[in-house]
Amino acid sequence: MRATLIYGAGDIRVENVPDPVLRQPTDALVRVLRSCICGSDLWPYGSAPVSEHGRRIGHEFLGVVEETGREVSGLRAGDVVVAPFVWSDGICDFCVEGLQTSCRHGGGWGTQDVDGGQGEAVRVPHADGTLVKLPVGEDSALLPSLLTLSDVYPTGHHCAVTAGVGPRTTVTVIGDGAVGLSAVLAARRLGAEQIILMGRHKDRTDLGREFGATDIVPERGEEGIERVKELTGGDGTRTVLECVGLESAMRTALAVVRDGGVVSRVGAPQYQQIPAGFPEFRRNITITGGGAPARAYIEELMPEILDGTLQPGKVFDRTVSLDDVPAGYQAMADRAALKVLVQP
Amino acid sequence: MRATLIYGAGDIRVENVPDPVLRQPTDALVRVLRSCICGSDLWPYGSAPVSEHGRRIGHEFLGVVEETGREVSGLRAGDVVVAPFVWSDGICDFCVEGLQTSCRHGGGWGTQDVDGGQGEAVRVPHADGTLVKLPVGEDSALLPSLLTLSDVYPTGHHCAVTAGVGPRTTVTVIGDGAVGLSAVLAARRLGAEQIILMGRHKDRTDLGREFGATDIVPERGEEGIERVKELTGGDGTRTVLECVGLESAMRTALAVVRDGGVVSRVGAPQYQQIPAGFPEFRRNITITGGGAPARAYIEELMPEILDGTLQPGKVFDRTVSLDDVPAGYQAMADRAALKVLVQP
Repeated sequence: MRATLIYGAGDIRVENVPDPVLRQPTDALVRVLRSCICGSDLWPYGSAPVSEHGRRIGHEFLGVVEETGREVSGLRAGDVVVAPFVWSDGICDFCVEGLQTSCRHGGGWGTQDVDGGQGEAVRVPHADGTLVKLPVGEDSALLPSLLTLSDVYPTGHHCAVTAGVGPRTTVTVIGDGAVGLSAVLAARRLGAEQIILMGRHKDRTDLGREFGATDIVPERGEEGIERVKELTGGDGTRTVLECVGLESAMRTALAVVRDGGVVSRVGAPQYQQIPAGFPEFRRNITITGGGAPARAYIEELMPEILDGTLQPGKVFDRTVSLDDVPAGYQAMADRAALKVLVQP
Repeated sequence: MRATLIYGAGDIRVENVPDPVLRQPTDALVRVLRSCICGSDLWPYGSAPVSEHGRRIGHEFLGVVEETGREVSGLRAGDVVVAPFVWSDGICDFCVEGLQTSCRHGGGWGTQDVDGGQGEAVRVPHADGTLVKLPVGEDSALLPSLLTLSDVYPTGHHCAVTAGVGPRTTVTVIGDGAVGLSAVLAARRLGAEQIILMGRHKDRTDLGREFGATDIVPERGEEGIERVKELTGGDGTRTVLECVGLESAMRTALAVVRDGGVVSRVGAPQYQQIPAGFPEFRRNITITGGGAPARAYIEELMPEILDGTLQPGKVFDRTVSLDDVPAGYQAMADRAALKVLVQP
């Protein structure tokens, strides 16, 4: 089959790789209908060391079950399914608690012996625990929005949930990437009263407004912080959803959160430490979030996609074929595309 | 009157200072019955720069109201009262929410124009908002335990509350100082199932056992981390109460918290940053806590002291007169005393 590999910074190739086969009785084989490129894929795209044999990449996909191992009981060939961005057994204590990212027998896509999502097919370990059946056909117009259940939408939702967003909460969302926009959508869905979106790309913040942002702050740094303070009577918001992953974004987050408030972060951190000295201590700031257990949220988030109420798939503004995935990476890195859908 | 001043590291003096007088109609004058030395006083005692005129110190006291300003309505001369470690107006939005440490008109003791607690008397700003009346006499045997309501006991309680300790929670408490032991007491009171106390001073950890610790880990660093892991099936505890304030303690906290768990910190941080890179992110660790709004908890914590159920005052293992406060500091710095009560 064809699949995407990364050979180093800026070096994405689509190549022939061995067709996946069942290895464990709990595996399923899934033919990919749609996958996509994640903002977090841009980190290795920007800085990965040279790899002689390449490494599979891509962790968001939905597709059709083609074959199942003999211990898979909840799925059958022909089912349309979505995969969260980590696979998990679904039965360990962490999975039962809804923290599938810490599954005792789970792992990531595109790792040793496990296919990446940006390819024609994927062997899915622990298929019963990992995959969620979608009640749609292969040609459904809802596929892009359903694909967001793989990562970006639950990630924004996780950010809002861990921050404690609820009715009448004030929220600042930092970052107008697909995760930030998904966080806006999630915060709105949870009833947030004021949602300030910090972002400077007008086409993206326009979508942010459509998703529920009440205020847009295009300024960055000190100027942006001052603007959020102005919008909140000088105090900042009770919750801040940090959807970038850079230290500068985290510093902004800490500056615009109200005393006693919560900063939740879901952007894969490109830093090792965060400021947490006396100022943050005195102000009783909580820092939470992390890698989203997307699997935990899919059933909750799916109905509004199925009935057309919410369209998180609007974050996709470009579609490429599998062979054009390298161009898709470049478009996202250049900020020419917000999020790229891949149709193998 | 006599009051304690700090002139620099290791240089504590008790001197004559002007008697406090009412300045604002919302002030009260309080004659101090008991005060004490806080673990956090040891940080300036260890490292404060030389001060030509000295700086008042002490932020925990209870006493008798001697005089009230004309706008003070809830207190009268003769009332026995306890003061939390910051003063606050009691009516701003932060106070109403229970975050009096962020009061819009509040402040600390021993700052510009405000007396410290380690003296004979204190002018209390915003007396109605700040002071809590104690239903005991000046000679009550409960004064030491009631004095803990000023800081150390609510601080331990804040740590447990913000960490989300409740029935059946597993807890690691880092630090066998008075705050750590108070956190043990608070965690037990909140119903924690397993309370692992990390501390190496046997007399202190013995008190920790009395307060409710189920396990004692005297080892430090990697060895201590391994021991906590052994006690928790390899996972660590769901909550960690960091009651020291050193970076090493914070690193231990992050190492012994279970994935998805919470580290709460109430030890005044002697560090500027905390590790929060990909490992902590992937594990969905929450970092919370901060300076405890003691005022918010006093009414809740007082009844069990009054009826004798709980005796947080057991953290006091030495009593000194006001003139002997310098020796009290030295005894705490030498770890010869756990916490020193001052009887002016």
